[in-house]
Amino acid sequence: MADHNALPLVILTEKFASLPGIGMKSAQRLAYHVMSMDMKSVEDFANALINAKRDVGCCSQCQNLTEREICPICGDESRDHSVICVVESPKDVTAFERTREYGGVYHVLHGLLSPMDGITPDKLRMRELLSRISAGGVEEVIMATNPTVEGDATAMYIANLLKPLGVKVSRLAFGLPVGGMLEYADEVTLYKALENRNNM
Amino acid sequence: MADHNALPLVILTEKFASLPGIGMKSAQRLAYHVMSMDMKSVEDFANALINAKRDVGCCSQCQNLTEREICPICGDESRDHSVICVVESPKDVTAFERTREYGGVYHVLHGLLSPMDGITPDKLRMRELLSRISAGGVEEVIMATNPTVEGDATAMYIANLLKPLGVKVSRLAFGLPVGGMLEYADEVTLYKALENRNNM
Repeated sequence: MADHNALPLVILTEKFASLPGIGMKSAQRLAYHVMSMDMKSVEDFANALINAKRDVGCCSQCQNLTEREICPICGDESRDHSVICVVESPKDVTAFERTREYGGVYHVLHGLLSPMDGITPDKLRMRELLSRISAGGVEEVIMATNPTVEGDATAMYIANLLKPLGVKVSRLAFGLPVGGMLEYADEVTLYKALENRNNM
Repeated sequence: MADHNALPLVILTEKFASLPGIGMKSAQRLAYHVMSMDMKSVEDFANALINAKRDVGCCSQCQNLTEREICPICGDESRDHSVICVVESPKDVTAFERTREYGGVYHVLHGLLSPMDGITPDKLRMRELLSRISAGGVEEVIMATNPTVEGDATAMYIANLLKPLGVKVSRLAFGLPVGGMLEYADEVTLYKALENRNNM
């Protein structure tokens, strides 16, 4: 914003613009919107920021975000603790929970291997995954990272680490999305769908 | 977010989702991003929200947002106070200031007439505009609302109010955007460009 703008507004705009996916124009619009909110709502927003950062940490088992020592999923005795689904981020846990079909537990890596960006195995929560498996009781680890270069490389890396421990390691199936149209599928997806075809 | 998510995170997500142009998926991504910021940055963000709302008000003359009694533009003696550019919102002032060509002052309406949505003349800062003009010294009022139904109606309404006061009222020129291509111009823009053609 130009220098005729009030400084507190310029600062707020910069804070919004520092968030991912929000450009300067959107940030300015959001800052003006805050001006139109009542003081109580603005205070609630500010407190929500502080509270989330202060009260939410990582589950000591699966590393998902939680305000407790052990998250509700890891603490749920009715779930199958012998199956661990390994995901990149907390939002992937939310995606799996939406299906209401998965009854095992999770492990959140908080990233994917990307040596070019300095993300080496020690930057991810791999040590915690290894110690969960070393503790025993785990029969299968499902690698559920995204089908991208980094996702595949991370899955492969972890699979190679885990296989000597005698645990079954599987990977999500890749193929046609349900409801998708053949003609719109890219070549790699179609090839995967063909390669992984099932008997009828 | 599903109920396995930490409550402070759910609350923060809802706060982000209540902002204009931010859906649930983006809000969730922003909430997770806040978790990855350090505590100091989160506190700075929270303070920026509170400070902007608490310290910024409307200029007693032009109604633009400012932290002072009189905004820097209205307080600038070198500007031409006999010309007032009437705009819908503070971001329009920023747009005009970016041109570095306009030397007059502004009046921010904080909205456009829209009787269907309950936005009647008394909801806008029209009384303040009338009293500025009644105080004398104003020669021209430029109606710079957007070329939309509401923008045109608001410009027309104010023009009819001001003309009896003996002040010149003008409207922004509408035509082809500079650098634009004829073939991509919509019919109304092209018609306006033709109608308002200038001698060469």
